[in-house]
Amino acid sequence: MERRPIGIFDSGVGGLTVLKAIRDRFPDEDFIYFGDTARVPYGTKSERTIIRYSLENARLLRKFNVKLIVVACNTSSSYALDILEKEMDVPVLGVVKPGASAAVKATKTGNIGVIGTEATIKSGAYRREILTINPFLKIFEKPCPLFVPLIEEGWLEDEITYMVAERYLSEFKNKNIDTLVLGCTHYPLLKNVIGKVCNNIKLVDSAEETALETGKIINKVKCTGKGEVRILVSDMSNRFKKIAEMIMGDSFSIEEVSVDVC
Amino acid sequence: MERRPIGIFDSGVGGLTVLKAIRDRFPDEDFIYFGDTARVPYGTKSERTIIRYSLENARLLRKFNVKLIVVACNTSSSYALDILEKEMDVPVLGVVKPGASAAVKATKTGNIGVIGTEATIKSGAYRREILTINPFLKIFEKPCPLFVPLIEEGWLEDEITYMVAERYLSEFKNKNIDTLVLGCTHYPLLKNVIGKVCNNIKLVDSAEETALETGKIINKVKCTGKGEVRILVSDMSNRFKKIAEMIMGDSFSIEEVSVDVC
Repeated sequence: MERRPIGIFDSGVGGLTVLKAIRDRFPDEDFIYFGDTARVPYGTKSERTIIRYSLENARLLRKFNVKLIVVACNTSSSYALDILEKEMDVPVLGVVKPGASAAVKATKTGNIGVIGTEATIKSGAYRREILTINPFLKIFEKPCPLFVPLIEEGWLEDEITYMVAERYLSEFKNKNIDTLVLGCTHYPLLKNVIGKVCNNIKLVDSAEETALETGKIINKVKCTGKGEVRILVSDMSNRFKKIAEMIMGDSFSIEEVSVDVC
Repeated sequence: MERRPIGIFDSGVGGLTVLKAIRDRFPDEDFIYFGDTARVPYGTKSERTIIRYSLENARLLRKFNVKLIVVACNTSSSYALDILEKEMDVPVLGVVKPGASAAVKATKTGNIGVIGTEATIKSGAYRREILTINPFLKIFEKPCPLFVPLIEEGWLEDEITYMVAERYLSEFKNKNIDTLVLGCTHYPLLKNVIGKVCNNIKLVDSAEETALETGKIINKVKCTGKGEVRILVSDMSNRFKKIAEMIMGDSFSIEEVSVDVC
């Protein structure tokens, strides 16, 4: 039987939280992950550029004969999912729909907070997905652009990070929110800090939900892999390796590839 | 006489501080500025990627018949200047040499601090340039990766920014430093905060020094311009416009161009 890996892409390193969640559940599958580290971040860039980059990344993965493309980047999922679904001849799965669906299941007060990059929040993608499931829910959104740089600086449990979280999340107080969507793959690394600021609020991490959704698709196809993980990046840096090890919990080889040069 | 603009590039918006300094001094010159906003930042990326991007940016400017290329980006200046000088048939001026030279002139204690992006500090470019002028000086370097995101968030005079500056710059204390090089074009926007933390230390901003150096080159060529400024970006965003207006003090038109697609 032909071996076909699951393809996953992200703007950078954060999508490894999604790779990890899927691999933990399906350890016999082969994976190919692409992190577009030469052009990261996406969350501060325009819709047009985000769509172009997402298409290029998906085409790159397609060359490796993937059987499924998981868009682990919330920003790409927010803007490019429809276009990717149209262009690709394999299933494409984003992280927004699974995250939204989990948030709807979790809320009891009917008030949901969503945090993410500037672009993700501006797109209103989570709001749309949540309201499609239940139009009576109330949604409160807030971009948190400093979270990613703080994580990349390694200040995960830090007084300054705590103050930044307080500043961003204070407007959620007194809104009777019981569920907060971590709408950026980096944010689970700040679960402790966000959890302290948003006391008694359930944090929804799309990675787990996306792994469940992935299962529904690949369970239809018999596993063809041997549990291999191949990680590609468009820019090789120690920074990537350092954070990748924080997420994956072990070390692994990384290859550099070109995505934007023809 | 043929009109030939001065070309300036940066990874993003920060290089406009250099454009402004040169334009203030030579208001009759024409300028073409390129901000590589689709791939910003450079300071967290690898040497190879920084060199490739810098070459592509210079080639783009060259198409506009520029008479001089100013590399306003400290990260590009640190890694790509030699290669750009070899490849280009017009003079190429970086910001590191002028900044280093100003720091050497300014210091009395002989102890100089240098701050910049991770890549700029890692390159050791300022250290090399300063020691080439005077090998007896003492240099203390520190990357400050959160400064750019804090500036882009607009938190210029903010308690949190002040705490981050304290954290980064505390190791300069008790080193008898009297001169601090702001080795990133964004940093002049934090002059107040940095000035408070580094009390009684002279802050060296490469923009002014680079404008002086530019003068030495263009004074040899009679001015052919009409004071026109054209700003190009690889990704059009409101973010760029907002910070550009903070730096330039007025509004202006911006065009989007492709730099990485052939």
